[in-house]
Amino acid sequence: MNKTILLDNRPQGKPSHSDFKFVENDKPSPKDGEVLLKTCYVSVDPYLRGRMIDQKSYIEPFELNKPLSSGIIAEVVESKIDDFSKGDYVSAMLDWKEYQVSDGQNLQKVDPDQAPLSTYLGVLGMTGLTAYFGLTDIGKPKEGETVVVSGAAGAVGTVVGQIAKIKGCRVVGIAGTDEKIDMIKSKFGFDEAVNYKTTSDMKKAIAEAAPDGVDVYFDNVGGPITDAVMANINRHGRVVACGAISTYNATETPTGPRLETTLIKKSVLMQGFTVGNYAEKFKEGVQQLASWMQSGDLTYTETMVEGFDNIPQAFIDLFDGKNEGKMVVKV
Amino acid sequence: MNKTILLDNRPQGKPSHSDFKFVENDKPSPKDGEVLLKTCYVSVDPYLRGRMIDQKSYIEPFELNKPLSSGIIAEVVESKIDDFSKGDYVSAMLDWKEYQVSDGQNLQKVDPDQAPLSTYLGVLGMTGLTAYFGLTDIGKPKEGETVVVSGAAGAVGTVVGQIAKIKGCRVVGIAGTDEKIDMIKSKFGFDEAVNYKTTSDMKKAIAEAAPDGVDVYFDNVGGPITDAVMANINRHGRVVACGAISTYNATETPTGPRLETTLIKKSVLMQGFTVGNYAEKFKEGVQQLASWMQSGDLTYTETMVEGFDNIPQAFIDLFDGKNEGKMVVKV
Repeated sequence: MNKTILLDNRPQGKPSHSDFKFVENDKPSPKDGEVLLKTCYVSVDPYLRGRMIDQKSYIEPFELNKPLSSGIIAEVVESKIDDFSKGDYVSAMLDWKEYQVSDGQNLQKVDPDQAPLSTYLGVLGMTGLTAYFGLTDIGKPKEGETVVVSGAAGAVGTVVGQIAKIKGCRVVGIAGTDEKIDMIKSKFGFDEAVNYKTTSDMKKAIAEAAPDGVDVYFDNVGGPITDAVMANINRHGRVVACGAISTYNATETPTGPRLETTLIKKSVLMQGFTVGNYAEKFKEGVQQLASWMQSGDLTYTETMVEGFDNIPQAFIDLFDGKNEGKMVVKV
Repeated sequence: MNKTILLDNRPQGKPSHSDFKFVENDKPSPKDGEVLLKTCYVSVDPYLRGRMIDQKSYIEPFELNKPLSSGIIAEVVESKIDDFSKGDYVSAMLDWKEYQVSDGQNLQKVDPDQAPLSTYLGVLGMTGLTAYFGLTDIGKPKEGETVVVSGAAGAVGTVVGQIAKIKGCRVVGIAGTDEKIDMIKSKFGFDEAVNYKTTSDMKKAIAEAAPDGVDVYFDNVGGPITDAVMANINRHGRVVACGAISTYNATETPTGPRLETTLIKKSVLMQGFTVGNYAEKFKEGVQQLASWMQSGDLTYTETMVEGFDNIPQAFIDLFDGKNEGKMVVKV
C-alpha cells in the first residue's frame, strides 16, 4: 500500500492534525519514460503554511483534498528512463506520498557519498541557498559589521550566522530556548545570543548585544522581535525579509509600529525574497556552501523525526520552535 | 533691524505659532572673509518637522531658542570674499533670518537668468533632486510599468510623476483635493489620480487606477494611503520611502499592518533615503532636470507665500496640504 497526505482543511491559526488527511492507494507502476520513487526524507518548512491559504502568491496555494508537497529526497526503485537507474537518489519538490511516479523532469540527482542525504534538503539545499543568497545578495555584510539573525537556531538562521562569521562580522542570534542559545554560540560561533522568551526588554537586549548597532538584520520571524531589532538598526542598514513565522498563523492582519520613518531617517533597505529568485545561480550557491563545509567553516544541525505518519506533527512543531536547525522527516 | 525665527517649543502634534519665536537684532556686519546675505526665498519642507524633535537622526535636531534653518536663496548685499560680489545670488542651508553673514562655505551661486530664483529651492534644488534620485536610483521604473505617487501634487510628487512619464510609465497620483487631482492630470500628465479624501475604499481605487498592479510606489505620505497601495504592489515591486508626512505630527508611535509577509511573498524592495545620500551626483542630477525643463518635458508649480513673518504659517500649512507643488516664502 501507499500512503498519501492530503490537505483536508485550510488551517485557522496554528495548523492541527485535523487539517491533514491520510489516504491509502495502491503503489503506482511506472510507465515508459517514468521512474518509481520511494520517499526517503521529507522537508517540513514554515513557508508551507502560506501555501495552505487560498491566496495568490509567488507559488500556487495547495488545493483541498490534494496531496501536500515539499522538498523530498527519494530513491529510484524502478526506472523506465535512461537517465535514471535503480538505486539513484534524487531531490525534488514531490508529493507527501510514500511512493510516486515521475517523468524525471525537475529531478536533481544527489550523491549520498558526498554528504548525508538529508543535507540536500538543508544546508546544501533550499535552506542553505536561502541563507546564502539572502545574506550575500541583499544583506551584503561587510567585515566588521554587526549582523543580527532572528530564528537563529533554525535551518536558515544557523547557516546565515556562519556565513556572516565567514564574512568577518559580529553575529548576534535571537532564539527561544536556552539550549538553542547555547548551541548557536558553542556550535555555530555566534558572538552573542538573546533568548526572546526570557528577555523582557528586547530593544535593550539587542542594543547590548550589538553595541555598534545593527548593520544587517536577517529576519526569519517578523513581529515584535523585528520591532526590537529595527529600533537598533544603523544608518544604511539592510533588512533581509526572509520569513515571518511569528505571523504565519495569525487569523487577523498583524499590526505593529510603522517602519516608514525609520527607513527614511536611516536610509534603510528592506528587501523580501524567495530563494526561487536565484534559480539561475543555485549551482554556484551549492558549490560555495559545499566548499565551506569541506573547509570546516560551515556545519549544520538537524532535527530528525522518524516515520511518514509523523510529517504533520513535525510541521506543526515548527511553530512551537521545537526544531534545532533543519526539521526533516525520515520515512 | 533684523528678524530671526527661533524654535521656542518642540511641537506636540501639529506645529503651531506658539512653537516659534520672533526676535529682532541689529543687522550684522561682515568681517574680512565674510559676506552679508539678504534672504530672498525660504523653503519650508515637511522634513523640518523631524528636526524639531530632540532625537538623533541623519541631521542634527534643531536646538531650542536657536534659529531654525532650511534651504534659502539669498542675495549678497556686501562682500568681503573675493569669490562673491554684491548682487550675486546664492543657495544654501541658512538660518531663518532676514540678514546673516556667511564665510562663503557651502554657498552655491545660482543664476537668476537661467531659471526663476525660487526654482533653485524646488525643481532644480533639493526637491527636484529628491524626486530624481529616489525614482531613478531606487524605483528604477521601466517602460510600461505602473508608478504610483502619494503626495502627488506636492513639491516632490509633481516631479516624480513627470519623470515617470518621461520613462514611459503609467503614472497614478494620490492627492487630497479635486483641484490637485485636476492639476496633476492636466498640467503634469498623470494618467490617473485618486482623491484620498473623497474615496472610501482606497485599496479598490488604486486597483482600478492601476489595473496591472503597482510596480513602483514613490511614497511621500506613509500611513493608511501606503497600506492601500501596498495591497496592490506587484511581484518585484519597489517602494521608494521618501516621506511620511501623515505620521510626522503623531504623538504616539503610529501602527499599521505589518509588511513582512507582503515583502517576502512578492519579493518587494523598500528603501528609505534622504537626498544627501546622493551629494556626489547633485551636479549630474541638476543638469538632467534642467535639460528636461528646457525640452519642456518637466514643468513645475509652486505655492508662493509673501513675507518673512509668514514662514511659520507656510510651514504649518504643509500639514494641511495647502500647497500645490513647492511651498516657498518670498521675503
